[in-house]
Order: sequence, then structure tokens, then C-alpha cells
Amino acid sequence: MLHSLDLPVRLDTRAGSVLLRRASLADLDGLMALLSDDPISASRGDVASTEDAPAYRRALEQILEDAGNDLLVTVDERGRLVGTMQLTRIPGMARRGSTRLLVEAVRVRSDVRSAGIGGAMMRWVTQVAAPNLGSTLVQLTSDAARADAHRFYERLGFAASHVGFKFRVPGA
Amino acid sequence: MLHSLDLPVRLDTRAGSVLLRRASLADLDGLMALLSDDPISASRGDVASTEDAPAYRRALEQILEDAGNDLLVTVDERGRLVGTMQLTRIPGMARRGSTRLLVEAVRVRSDVRSAGIGGAMMRWVTQVAAPNLGSTLVQLTSDAARADAHRFYERLGFAASHVGFKFRVPGA
Repeated sequence: MLHSLDLPVRLDTRAGSVLLRRASLADLDGLMALLSDDPISASRGDVASTEDAPAYRRALEQILEDAGNDLLVTVDERGRLVGTMQLTRIPGMARRGSTRLLVEAVRVRSDVRSAGIGGAMMRWVTQVAAPNLGSTLVQLTSDAARADAHRFYERLGFAASHVGFKFRVPGA
Repeated sequence: MLHSLDLPVRLDTRAGSVLLRRASLADLDGLMALLSDDPISASRGDVASTEDAPAYRRALEQILEDAGNDLLVTVDERGRLVGTMQLTRIPGMARRGSTRLLVEAVRVRSDVRSAGIGGAMMRWVTQVAAPNLGSTLVQLTSDAARADAHRFYERLGFAASHVGFKFRVPGA
């Protein structure tokens, strides 16, 4: 986990507020449901099946044990897990030795989208988490098919300046 | 550093071979020269000036101390530092809890390009490093202006499936 993040924190949304906190193993079922609640992720094999639970559990444990990574969840006023994102702090040489913050796996539950939850999460990343972690740059990639997501990130001040390349390791 | 990488290793190129090894603080001047030997990096302020050396030194120390990161260099048969890249191992929830390998800051000295050095480095990443680190996916972003680099990655089997977004933290 990223120890210098000041969590939990309450974030205002258009519909009220959500609590942003670190994920725990008790969130596993909710996280698996969020990952499969997305047509692009589901097409890559992220379906919430019981037999995959051990793999997801090991992954969550690895993330929380890693000093450069954290997995966060947002919980609404009814106690439902409505969002998640992973943060990775990357020390680097470029830009005079600056540290960057990578955001991966941003998900908001499909039936509560457009309520400002994702915006509140990302503003917290750029305005609070990045400065606290000493990161001068926040970066993420978004599947080229997610046109709505691209507009969302551009409204938040992100520039679509790069092309994101992926290589699937054969046999993996 | 990523302890499970088996380094140094000799890589064949079209012009002979290069040695791929972990960077050390003795490489600092060569690394700074490589970063400024690139018009896009130079436009972001990566110029090899003496006053920036302490910032680059701290960055290199941080990378080498980090269990999820490594900085590698390639050295040609004349002992010249001709390439560099950074690797970051990222545990994740998506794709059934798979680990991915992020490649950042790939640079090859401008006067030895087209000798197959970058291709040898990237093939080692996809064929050797990723399997050794248990990563099922290798990912990187490339500035949208680097058309030559995009063709290079596509020839190596990378898919330009994502858009890379960057947010510069104000005041940083």
C-alpha cells in the first residue's frame, strides 16, 4: 500500500457523497462484481466466477503488500461498493527525475454512472494523492473503444498525448 | 530493482551485440546524455546540465531501491552506453489478477539507431523478462508524435489498443 495516502476520505458527488478508502480482503466479492460489470473487461475474461476467487484474492494481497501500489474503493451512503481504482507510484529518470502516478483499473458501477463518482475519485487523485506522493505527472491509459471515458478524462484536464501499446505474452 | 531478472545478458543486434545490464550510479552521466539526446524529452526539460545531476542521481537511487522497478542500460562493444529503459512490475486485479510489466523511458542513442538495439531490448522484455516476472501483459505508452516508434512497437507485436492520458500536476 501507499502509506502516505491519507485515507479514508469523504468525497462530494452530485448525488451526495461517497467514502474513498483502501480495499480490504472483505471487498473481494464486490471488486469481482465491479470488474465483470463492464463489457470490455468481461470480454477479456473478467467474469465473477467462484473458481477465480483465489486468483483475485492473491492479486489483492499482492497489491496491498506492495509499497508502490494501492487499491482503493468508493462506498456510497447505502454501503454499496460503487467504484475502484489502482494507484502505482513510479520513480523515474525523465523530466529531471520526477515521480509519476499511474492510475489503472478505474471502474464505477454501471447503474450509478453520471453521478459524479468517477470525477470525484479522479480529482482526488490529481489534487490530493499526486501531490502527497510527490508525483508531478498522473498517467493512465484507456481502451481506444471507450469514447465516453476519453471525454471524461479530457474534461478533468488530462491530455490524450500518447498512444498506449499492449503486448500479450504468448502462453500466459 | 527487480531481483528475478537474470542480468547481465548479451543480446544480438544487426551490428554485432550489446550487453544489457542493470544501471548503476556510475552510468549517471551517460543516462543524462541519452535523455537529452531526444528532441521530445529535451523539449520537456531533460537537458544534461550539471545542476540537475543531483536530482537524476536521487531518481536513479530510488529506482534501484524499489522492489518493483529496475533501470537497465545497453552497452555496445566499444563500451558506450547506447540504450536504456525502465521496467515496472505492477500487480493487478484485472484479467483474473494478472501482473503486468510497464516499460518506460525507452531510449536508444540517436547515432546508433536502426542497428537493431531497441528491437533486441524489447524482444528480451517480451520473451524473457515478462515470463520471468510472471507478467502476462507488457504495456507502454509512446508520445503521439513518435510515428517511427509506433511502427517499431507494432512490428514487435504490440497493439496500439489504448489512448495514453497525462495530467501535469499544477505547481509541480
